[in-house]
Amino acid sequence: MRTQSPKAERPEHLHLQVDLGQRSYPIVIGSGALADPLLAEHCAGRRCVLVSDQNVAPLYARTLLDRLALVDDDLIALPAGEQHKHLGSFQAILTRMAERGLRRDGCVIALGGGVIGDLAGFAAACYMRGIDFVQCPTTLLAMVDSSVGGKTGLNLPSGKNLVGAFWQPQLVLADVAALSTLSAREYRAGLAEVIKYAAIADPDFFDWLQRNVDAINAHDADAIVHMVATSCRHKAAIVARDEREAGERALLNLGHTFGHALEAATDYTQLLHGEAVAIGMVQAAQLSALLGMADAADTQRLIDLLSAVGLPSVAPPLPLDRLRHHLALDKKAVAGGLKFILWRGIGKAEIVSGVDERALDAVLSGQ
Amino acid sequence: MRTQSPKAERPEHLHLQVDLGQRSYPIVIGSGALADPLLAEHCAGRRCVLVSDQNVAPLYARTLLDRLALVDDDLIALPAGEQHKHLGSFQAILTRMAERGLRRDGCVIALGGGVIGDLAGFAAACYMRGIDFVQCPTTLLAMVDSSVGGKTGLNLPSGKNLVGAFWQPQLVLADVAALSTLSAREYRAGLAEVIKYAAIADPDFFDWLQRNVDAINAHDADAIVHMVATSCRHKAAIVARDEREAGERALLNLGHTFGHALEAATDYTQLLHGEAVAIGMVQAAQLSALLGMADAADTQRLIDLLSAVGLPSVAPPLPLDRLRHHLALDKKAVAGGLKFILWRGIGKAEIVSGVDERALDAVLSGQ
Repeated sequence: MRTQSPKAERPEHLHLQVDLGQRSYPIVIGSGALADPLLAEHCAGRRCVLVSDQNVAPLYARTLLDRLALVDDDLIALPAGEQHKHLGSFQAILTRMAERGLRRDGCVIALGGGVIGDLAGFAAACYMRGIDFVQCPTTLLAMVDSSVGGKTGLNLPSGKNLVGAFWQPQLVLADVAALSTLSAREYRAGLAEVIKYAAIADPDFFDWLQRNVDAINAHDADAIVHMVATSCRHKAAIVARDEREAGERALLNLGHTFGHALEAATDYTQLLHGEAVAIGMVQAAQLSALLGMADAADTQRLIDLLSAVGLPSVAPPLPLDRLRHHLALDKKAVAGGLKFILWRGIGKAEIVSGVDERALDAVLSGQ
Repeated sequence: MRTQSPKAERPEHLHLQVDLGQRSYPIVIGSGALADPLLAEHCAGRRCVLVSDQNVAPLYARTLLDRLALVDDDLIALPAGEQHKHLGSFQAILTRMAERGLRRDGCVIALGGGVIGDLAGFAAACYMRGIDFVQCPTTLLAMVDSSVGGKTGLNLPSGKNLVGAFWQPQLVLADVAALSTLSAREYRAGLAEVIKYAAIADPDFFDWLQRNVDAINAHDADAIVHMVATSCRHKAAIVARDEREAGERALLNLGHTFGHALEAATDYTQLLHGEAVAIGMVQAAQLSALLGMADAADTQRLIDLLSAVGLPSVAPPLPLDRLRHHLALDKKAVAGGLKFILWRGIGKAEIVSGVDERALDAVLSGQ
């Protein structure tokens, strides 16, 4: 899918498409994707704001502002971190949008990780009941997961992502060169979501990941582009079939029901989201094996791959009742009880309701 | 359309339908509609919160809580008034929803005027990326306008309704008995939106309103039901054809571009929304006449009807530059300039761009 001619005027980036009818949009992946002319074309002739955080803005915002002929006041640089994904930051973005005179034809550009993408996307969804936005993810996690698919939102003190909207971007630019400034731990956390796609639906990709652990751990550019593109392809296909998570899209939550409970039970201070998802996937695999749905050998293969890229697979010791409490708050819970994403082995995830409580407790207590 | 049998188990309310495919919903209109069994059926078996304000809650909340088997903590009674339609109230609703354990199958019931409907609807739109809600409008304005059609939102310090979502209710209950506790001024303000439907698209309804001024001013129950039903029918038809205001729905803003500027220029302290809309409709009619689109006799008929029901038709004296400033902030403004809703006479509204600036100034300065 890459342009081969070295004289091509367009840079050699991979272009994928999220098919959502009139709301379809391209994902541009590659080193230097932030300079792709699609962005300037998209923003031409209208007011835009650039939303970022105080870690990312000093690295990449200046170039973008200049390229798009924006002024310093068009940049909203929020404090960095999940603890700022709250209504106060949402209000700060909206207030600046109004001050800068954005109208219904305005556009919001999100430059950063998942927190920035979620906040900026939700602000775009709500400002004047919805305006355009562009995702420029700068973390691996955001590139392979949160920037694609239109889930936006913020946290309440009572729970993560309790407030939000489904609101699709018009363009996603995944510039893998931005990953050079990512910490090793953040990079690994992103790999958990990459492995998730393999675990849900793609045993060949799982094999590829196993074979390419050295290149992945060396941050090899080609390996990263392949991982990002494969992950985005899976996400785009699932979102195209089930945009609002009426069914199949819930598979993308493999490891997330357990993971969210782990994050909450450790007050969001010990585990990065990707680390919690890694452990959560192992717990989902263990529960699947306990219920007789899958072979324990698949659990071991998952643990081995996670370990090979430096991700945890065992939860820190936590009281069972605290974990159960946080599980019960899961958004996927309905009056009928919890839904779990389990598997029948690598590449074969399923949505399961009515899980045996003793098996669940056994997994949660690490027995 | 009324059930004739006095023995019918269902109360004798008028049922209209807003046709939006899978998101279609009924509007139940009549005295006692709050007791319609549809509400209890809709809320059965799931967690609900009742959002109201401190004026309305003491009048009607207890009965609803009891009928729906809700507890006191399920009632959120916000301070009353447009000045509370802000992010703080939004946060208060969302926080309580989380505390009460609402999940994706939960439901929000809005009981009050337009402020409550807008806030509660927006909270329903955003909580867990969207849950059900029911509108129980208690003002004439909310019954004939804001409770139908799915516009929800709140104000920023920089402007009204700058934040919001399109989010349709599943049910609207317009209990005209609730209007007995409405102040005479609030009732008249609601009549402005009723007259608006006649002015946009229904000369026969305009004639009916002229002929029935005495019954309207006497708060005659049959006249009120006819006004509410006719208004809701018009709104439902337009919303069904253009839910997200890509075109025709903008006609519903007749008088609103001028009206919003008048409200803002008087700091929202002098004019009720309906009063500002009344004046705004007259200004739109005057501008139409000045541009040669309509006969000035139609402007006079409009002024006469507004006067007959006690509504103003002349703006308070305001500096021209302040009005122009607020007009420029109108949400309907795009890079190409302001759009106005004008008319070619009673019942024939049109969307017009590129209005002559001198004619506009002449109308704004009352010349």
